[in-house]
Amino acid sequence: MRYCVIMCGGVGSRFWPFSREARPKQFLDFFGTGRSLLQLTFDRVLEVVPAERVLLVTNRQYAPLIREQLPEVPPANILLEPARRNTAPCICWAAHHIMARDPEASIVTLPSDHLVLKEQAFHTALRRGFEFVEQGDRLLTLGIKPTAPQTGYGYIQQGRPVEGMEDFFKVRSFTEKPDLELAKVFLASGEFFWNAGIFLWKAESILKAFREHDPETSAVFSAGEGLYATPGEEAFIAEAFPTAPSNSIDYAIMEKASNVYVETVDLGWSDLGSWKALHDASPHDGRGNVTQGCRVLQHDCRDTIFAVSDPGKIVVAAGLEGYIVADTPNSLLIYPASQEQRIRNVVTDVRTLFGPDYV
Amino acid sequence: MRYCVIMCGGVGSRFWPFSREARPKQFLDFFGTGRSLLQLTFDRVLEVVPAERVLLVTNRQYAPLIREQLPEVPPANILLEPARRNTAPCICWAAHHIMARDPEASIVTLPSDHLVLKEQAFHTALRRGFEFVEQGDRLLTLGIKPTAPQTGYGYIQQGRPVEGMEDFFKVRSFTEKPDLELAKVFLASGEFFWNAGIFLWKAESILKAFREHDPETSAVFSAGEGLYATPGEEAFIAEAFPTAPSNSIDYAIMEKASNVYVETVDLGWSDLGSWKALHDASPHDGRGNVTQGCRVLQHDCRDTIFAVSDPGKIVVAAGLEGYIVADTPNSLLIYPASQEQRIRNVVTDVRTLFGPDYV
Repeated sequence: MRYCVIMCGGVGSRFWPFSREARPKQFLDFFGTGRSLLQLTFDRVLEVVPAERVLLVTNRQYAPLIREQLPEVPPANILLEPARRNTAPCICWAAHHIMARDPEASIVTLPSDHLVLKEQAFHTALRRGFEFVEQGDRLLTLGIKPTAPQTGYGYIQQGRPVEGMEDFFKVRSFTEKPDLELAKVFLASGEFFWNAGIFLWKAESILKAFREHDPETSAVFSAGEGLYATPGEEAFIAEAFPTAPSNSIDYAIMEKASNVYVETVDLGWSDLGSWKALHDASPHDGRGNVTQGCRVLQHDCRDTIFAVSDPGKIVVAAGLEGYIVADTPNSLLIYPASQEQRIRNVVTDVRTLFGPDYV
Repeated sequence: MRYCVIMCGGVGSRFWPFSREARPKQFLDFFGTGRSLLQLTFDRVLEVVPAERVLLVTNRQYAPLIREQLPEVPPANILLEPARRNTAPCICWAAHHIMARDPEASIVTLPSDHLVLKEQAFHTALRRGFEFVEQGDRLLTLGIKPTAPQTGYGYIQQGRPVEGMEDFFKVRSFTEKPDLELAKVFLASGEFFWNAGIFLWKAESILKAFREHDPETSAVFSAGEGLYATPGEEAFIAEAFPTAPSNSIDYAIMEKASNVYVETVDLGWSDLGSWKALHDASPHDGRGNVTQGCRVLQHDCRDTIFAVSDPGKIVVAAGLEGYIVADTPNSLLIYPASQEQRIRNVVTDVRTLFGPDYV
C-alpha cells in the first residue's frame, strides 16, 4: 500500500524572527490561511495517501507542536528522532518502520515546509510516481520545471527518457546550487530541474539502496529488524539513531545509485527557503510590496515584505526599497532583502548578545 | 509664597505611535529613566517650590493618569479643565485659584513635556526669576540661549538690559518660527532666544495683565471671584471655562504687555517637539543613531532613532539612514525623519483606515 513520510524536523533561522528554534518554519501559518505549512502539506497528501498511512518524522522536541497541529495523526505514525542527523537516517528509519508494517509498501517522502500552488498537478504527479516506482526497483525524485535562473536551488539534469512514460527520465546528474551564470545556462538548456526533495520508492527499494550505497547507515538500522512497529522500537531508536552518521539522502543515495529517475513536473512550487522566495511566492501590490498577516499604510515603498505576527498590529512605513520588515512580540527585523543571507549570522549574534529567548 | 503651575493638558500626535490621544507625550517615559516627562518636570521644580504648592492643570480626561503618575500631589492641586482652550484660559484660571489661596503669591508656569538637562541652572534661573518678579509688576519669560538655527521654535528678541540684573532684559519682540535663513541671522545676532513657554509673575500681575490685554478672558474668570479654592469652584469652572476664548498666553498677553522681561538662560533645554528634537537631545552612537528603551543590533545604519515601548524587545536593522523606527504593541512606524511633518496626517489616515484603537 501507499505511504507518505512527511519530514518535519527542520530547524531554520532564515526566517528569524518569525521562525524560532522552538517553532520553526513548518509550524508557521505563513500565508495567514489558518493552516501552517505542515498542516497544508498534510492536507495536500490526503488526496493520495489516507491519514492512517501518513507518517511524520520529526525531532523529539517538536512532538507537542505536531500533536497540537495534527491531532488527527495516530501517535503510532509520529516517529520522534532523538537526535538531528539530516535526511538519510530519517528516511532509512521510516522505511524500516513502514516495511515492518507492510513489506509491499511504496512511499512518498517529502518536506513539510514547501509551497505547492498547483494541488491537482501535485496529486497527479504523486499518483504517476507511485505507479512508476511500484513497477520495479526504482528511486524517483520530482524535478520542478524551473521558471527563473534560481541560484538558491539544487538542480537535477535529465538523462534519457523513460519509454512510454511522458515526463519521466533517468537522472544524469545532481548539481549543487549554481551561480547566476550557470543557472541561466541550466534554464536555457531545458534539461535541468529544481530538486524539490520529494522522493518516491518502494520501501524494499530504498532499503536495498542503503545496503548498497550507505552500508554504515544501513547497518545501524538493520540491527533493529524485528523491533520496528513494536513496543521495542522506541528504546532501540533511542540507542541506535544517534550512532547513525549525519548525511543527506542526496549524498548518501541519490547521487550514487544508478536506478534514479526524475519525474518532471510543474507544481507552482517554492521551497520558501528565503524571504526572497516567500516574497516571490506571495501576492504583490503594484510596486512589489508584500503584506503578510498585517495591515500596512505605506508611501513610496517598493519590493518590501511586511510580515507581522500579530494580526491586530498595523505598520506605517515610507521610503523603504527592497526591505524585509518582520515583527514579532519580542523581535523586530528591518533588513535589506539583498543581504538576507546575513540573517543566519545575525541570529547567532542575537543569541550571544540577547540570549536564547530571542532565537 | 511661591507656586508652580505645570500645564499638562497637551495632546500631540507628532510622536505617534508612542504618544496616543489616551496617553500623550508628557505621560511617557521617553528616556527610559523610569519617570515620565511630567514626573521629571515635577521632580525638577520641587527644589524651588514645595509639592503642596505645585499645581497641575490638565484636561479632565487625564485625571486618572495624573493621579497614577503623581500620587503625591494633593487632589486640591489638580485643576481639571472641562474643555481645551489653549494656554491663556488655563493660566488665568490657575492665577485666580492661587490668588484665592495666597494673594501674595508668585507663580512659575511651565510645560510638562520639555527636557531640561541642566537642573541646577534651571533652579537658579527660577529663583532669580522669582526674586525679579516679586519686586514689581513684571511679566517674565525664560529665553533659552540658542545653540543652532532651529526653525521649530519661536524666538524672543532682547531689548535693553535690566540694570544690575545680569541676564535680564526687556523683551523687544516675540517672533514666530523663522525659516532657516532668518534663524541663522537670529543666531548670529546674539539677541534672539528660544521661547520655552516658562513664565514667572505674581498672581496679581498676571491678573492685572489679563484685565488690560485680554478683557474677555478676564471677565470669564473674574465672575468666579469668591468661588476659587472653595467647593463652588468646580461647578463654576464647568460652566465658565468652555466660554473662554481659545488663545495662547503669548498672543493674549506677552506680545501686548509693556512690562515683559526675558531672563536668558542655558538649561540644556529641548521642547522635544519632534522626533528630530528628541534625536538631537538623546545620546548618539558614533553614526548618529539613537536608541530609546530597546536593544538594537544594527549594521550600516545612520542618524536613525529606534524607539520601542517594550523594554524586552530587540531590534535588528541594517542600512537605514535618517529613519524613525517607533514600535508599540499595536503599531509600528518606519518613517524617514526628513518627512516627519507628515506623521500628523498619517495619524489621521490611520484613524480613518484602522480605527481609534491605533491613535
